[in-house]
Amino acid sequence: MNVNGIPQRTIWTSADNTAVEIIDQTRLPHEFVTLRLNTMRDAERAIRDMQVRGAPLIGVTAAYGVALSMRHHASDAALKATCDMLLAARPTAVNLRWGIERMRAVLAPLTMEQRAAAAWSEAALIAEEDVAINQAIGQHGCALIREIHQRKNTMVNILTHCNAGWLATVDWGTALAPIYAAVEADIPLHVWVDETRPRNQGASLTAWELGQHGVAHTVIVDNAGGHLMQHGKVDMVIVGCDRVTARGDVCNKIGTYLKALAAHDNGVPFYVALPTPTIDWTLQDGVQEIPIEERAAIEVTHISGLADDGKIHTVRVTPVGSAVANYGFDVTPARLVTALITERGVVYQPNELNMRALLAD
Amino acid sequence: MNVNGIPQRTIWTSADNTAVEIIDQTRLPHEFVTLRLNTMRDAERAIRDMQVRGAPLIGVTAAYGVALSMRHHASDAALKATCDMLLAARPTAVNLRWGIERMRAVLAPLTMEQRAAAAWSEAALIAEEDVAINQAIGQHGCALIREIHQRKNTMVNILTHCNAGWLATVDWGTALAPIYAAVEADIPLHVWVDETRPRNQGASLTAWELGQHGVAHTVIVDNAGGHLMQHGKVDMVIVGCDRVTARGDVCNKIGTYLKALAAHDNGVPFYVALPTPTIDWTLQDGVQEIPIEERAAIEVTHISGLADDGKIHTVRVTPVGSAVANYGFDVTPARLVTALITERGVVYQPNELNMRALLAD
Repeated sequence: MNVNGIPQRTIWTSADNTAVEIIDQTRLPHEFVTLRLNTMRDAERAIRDMQVRGAPLIGVTAAYGVALSMRHHASDAALKATCDMLLAARPTAVNLRWGIERMRAVLAPLTMEQRAAAAWSEAALIAEEDVAINQAIGQHGCALIREIHQRKNTMVNILTHCNAGWLATVDWGTALAPIYAAVEADIPLHVWVDETRPRNQGASLTAWELGQHGVAHTVIVDNAGGHLMQHGKVDMVIVGCDRVTARGDVCNKIGTYLKALAAHDNGVPFYVALPTPTIDWTLQDGVQEIPIEERAAIEVTHISGLADDGKIHTVRVTPVGSAVANYGFDVTPARLVTALITERGVVYQPNELNMRALLAD
Repeated sequence: MNVNGIPQRTIWTSADNTAVEIIDQTRLPHEFVTLRLNTMRDAERAIRDMQVRGAPLIGVTAAYGVALSMRHHASDAALKATCDMLLAARPTAVNLRWGIERMRAVLAPLTMEQRAAAAWSEAALIAEEDVAINQAIGQHGCALIREIHQRKNTMVNILTHCNAGWLATVDWGTALAPIYAAVEADIPLHVWVDETRPRNQGASLTAWELGQHGVAHTVIVDNAGGHLMQHGKVDMVIVGCDRVTARGDVCNKIGTYLKALAAHDNGVPFYVALPTPTIDWTLQDGVQEIPIEERAAIEVTHISGLADDGKIHTVRVTPVGSAVANYGFDVTPARLVTALITERGVVYQPNELNMRALLAD
């Protein structure tokens, strides 16, 4: 998607093909800064410090981390050490593990001499596959937006939570891919952007990427979505997800469940966009079976932003001495999900039967 | 309630009885600063700049503003000018108007000579009535907390949104009055405190007042409540309100509706605490009939807090150029409200019939 009018991805190989470059997402939305990752350790640091974030982008960055390492040391021992170190950068990121294991599976059978080139190709392939998946999600989701537009014949209002945009992937995004596709198709739309406390990915990342691409949007606090839906100001909700269980329960950023309840209460369709590998067939009851990560209190107690001096400052909002709990995700039961939007198609009233039917096609 | 172990109200007459003193709530939770209001203009500024906030406290401060003015000028013209100026301090505050009109009604029939003393007495009476009403709400609500404790036989977990604590009233609060009463009755409890974006009244005010009074509490982002309820970590919700319609729809801080939906979905009782004058018998359908104030974008785009230098700084969290919408309140339909907790008693399944029955008793 565009930044300042120029097409941009979140990760790309350097002109001399010896390194990869990324956007330092910790500096957004206030500064657009790119970084060059020359070594596996640079990639590991970018993942750990969340300069790259979003499941697909983390997986691709890790794959390139393996590739960068193989150029210097391609022994079995080096491959193992590389994979171990990258895995430790964000131990709970499922896609990180997936990307690394895919690289390991491709590289392990090869000779040391073959590994560097094969690793670079495989990482590039993973990146291109991500783009293709997201474009397909975009096309399937665009059809849903078009339907609403044809029915209403005015601008379509879409609410999203967190950032499942191109910044979380290599390009296009998951939840935002249908929106970018609809913009390309000249369907008039406007996006309500949930701030997404505590890390403010909506206010900082989603608002920034929509703004850079020229998509009409309005930032709201997470508390506002129910009110907007009561007053007919939301035509559909589209969110991404971290994991979907076999029966269609959706684990996504904390607060997603509240928006799904409000959508259900007001007859607003609630869509979840995802690549099909996000489905975890080993799980059924998401609320009972998915462990929810508890994150550091400082994400709640302190907020960073741009101060009058043009620098990023951090301020404390809670009183010293008050305890804080910080749950990263919640689970939206399948009964509240209108449909899943995948690269293979749309699954209405998701359950194991119709999800498996989609994949069998 | 206590501050630093010492009983404190939000407004009190000075030792020499020539002024009133308040807590400067704009400095909380980082600094506890009291201010002396010597003149009507001081009171007007305290209301306008939100050094005092919360419907009951605004009403009492305005009443004292009238009383301070009457000491200097007690003509009919002065009374009118005083009331007009105070009314303009926060034009949408219903309790501000109520407090001023009550003062006007008491003072208008009196001679100029009688007005100063009568105004001081009436303002003090309004303050004492507020305390008595809140204590009664506290006793009725405490019985509900006690029931849960007796059934569970462990600590009662209560979730609240925004600040309807003693800081919003003269003492005790509305939503927090049952909690303080239960603490006095040695019922073990813990409070989940919603941050309450965009103005963070939960994170800054509710957390501070509970902490100062020694009440166990944990601050969470507004997004977290649904997850907590899904996992049995909330036994009841108690919120305050700005207005209740004749059929029991509840207008309260933006985001209240989302918590009511989550409570309903998880079988968690959802209580609204209020003084009965908060009921607006002229309204029925709250969603359709109550106009929702849109507030300044800067409340969403910028956040203030304590920086490392020990000073309060403001930082921008959204990108420049992103539009913002800032709705102050939302409406929770009566069907989601388990009961209203009033100074007259508890109204289960609120509707016009049983609300009127309570007042007829």
